[in-house]
Amino acid sequence: MSKAHVFPLRVYYEDTDAGGIVYYANYLKYAERARSEMLREVGIESSRLMDEDNIALTVRKCAVDYHKPARLDDALEVHTRITQVGGASLQGAQHIKCDGKDIVVVHIKLACMAMTGKPARLPEGLRATLDQLVEK
Amino acid sequence: MSKAHVFPLRVYYEDTDAGGIVYYANYLKYAERARSEMLREVGIESSRLMDEDNIALTVRKCAVDYHKPARLDDALEVHTRITQVGGASLQGAQHIKCDGKDIVVVHIKLACMAMTGKPARLPEGLRATLDQLVEK
Amino acid sequence: MSKAHVFPLRVYYEDTDAGGIVYYANYLKYAERARSEMLREVGIESSRLMDEDNIALTVRKCAVDYHKPARLDDALEVHTRITQVGGASLQGAQHIKCDGKDIVVVHIKLACMAMTGKPARLPEGLRATLDQLVEK
Amino acid sequence: MSKAHVFPLRVYYEDTDAGGIVYYANYLKYAERARSEMLREVGIESSRLMDEDNIALTVRKCAVDYHKPARLDDALEVHTRITQVGGASLQGAQHIKCDGKDIVVVHIKLACMAMTGKPARLPEGLRATLDQLVEK
Repeated sequence: MSKAHVFPLRVYYEDTDAGGIVYYANYLKYAERARSEMLREVGIESSRLMDEDNIALTVRKCAVDYHKPARLDDALEVHTRITQVGGASLQGAQHIKCDGKDIVVVHIKLACMAMTGKPARLPEGLRATLDQLVEK
Repeated sequence: MSKAHVFPLRVYYEDTDAGGIVYYANYLKYAERARSEMLREVGIESSRLMDEDNIALTVRKCAVDYHKPARLDDALEVHTRITQVGGASLQGAQHIKCDGKDIVVVHIKLACMAMTGKPARLPEGLRATLDQLVEK
Repeated sequence: MSKAHVFPLRVYYEDTDAGGIVYYANYLKYAERARSEMLREVGIESSRLMDEDNIALTVRKCAVDYHKPARLDDALEVHTRITQVGGASLQGAQHIKCDGKDIVVVHIKLACMAMTGKPARLPEGLRATLDQLVEK
Repeated sequence: MSKAHVFPLRVYYEDTDAGGIVYYANYLKYAERARSEMLREVGIESSRLMDEDNIALTVRKCAVDYHKPARLDDALEVHTRITQVGGASLQGAQHIKCDGKDIVVVHIKLACMAMTGKPARLPEGLRATLDQLVEK
């Protein structure tokens, strides 16, 4: 299995809620920051996909398991693997960890969308780059 | 099947992203506002659960299907049904609609947590109230 | 002095932080929801300004005084007045209230911006509508 | 003048809005992340202030000037200086920069609050540490 991309982050006040823990929707922000950085490392930036290719990778499905809450000032890591790339979509698994243990696990399916809102095929170069990221 | 609880809301700038659509994590905020209002209508408030019962209902799992994006100024509705209540958890389905059609569907499992972070059983009165909300 | 526009809202988990109070940036979200609804009532929608006029009203300055924190489940009101309209900008005051008392006060200056990012003059029809909202 | 604390960050989808720029409230999140890291570097963590000293530093006032918008994928820096420390409050200036130029400037006043919601004096050790951060 390929090595996962690892993205470190810190929990700030903005992420937490009155229950004293990270608000459940905010783990999806963490997951997306990690996906963005994984793609940036192989030369893919969302802003350029929009401006030059007129496309965006949008989320079609996600399934989230919350095992243990993160709290203010925790240092977390998001471990991201792309598991499958198709003609117009890709799938991945993201493990958010604290002290080396999974606290939240996200399974996600992204689809390529034209800026008009219509589904689109992944441009060939983008698909080739993503294919290289898929775990083997 | 019981009638769903319906919660109307509007899409503001804060909800959208540079792709021109509602950011994927923000539908989970909509879902939680709707759950809060459904519970408030039967006399349950999160702040009182915390202060008086020392518990919170926290999300253990959610699965989200994104069918169609919402955009700035859209008027949406969240249709919420509780589908199952157990000794320490409950499950529900939430359909976020625009112009009467499902755009995002959320299946969710909540668990009762003591403010210490440990799992807890649903207090009897709370469970009885939730049972009445379950679709029949 | 003209009557302020009043926008009611509820504090949800998403708005609060681990300090048990509404996170300081989120009052600016409340303020913007209120401005959006005030404008919608006189026929102005942000999405149409963008799509039809290629402009947006963007914030140039804001000054915020935090007198008292709001908490989970609080019912708040945002009282909004436009105080001045110029050729390319407008100013307003927004009082966020709980139990009838100001808890947060926002003074704000908005400027008209073309979607290219350049400053723009307020379209005549928009300016006339805004003028009617100014307190006299 | 003392050297400012510099905190680098990246703009993600979560930060932007349908206008294609960073949503105005989100710069306050950036400002707070920067303050948290500046304090963490001198041994002060918000979570420990809450748990051990039963206090939090809360925002009493802020004034924000928005000169130029940031966009998706921009690399920003927050330059933070504490300008004044009193018995129960402190003041600071935060310059958010893109390509070396100020895009948003935040002036802020924080006050020490007991977790009961009442104002409190800064604990002596905390105040001494903050004093050392003040520009000379």
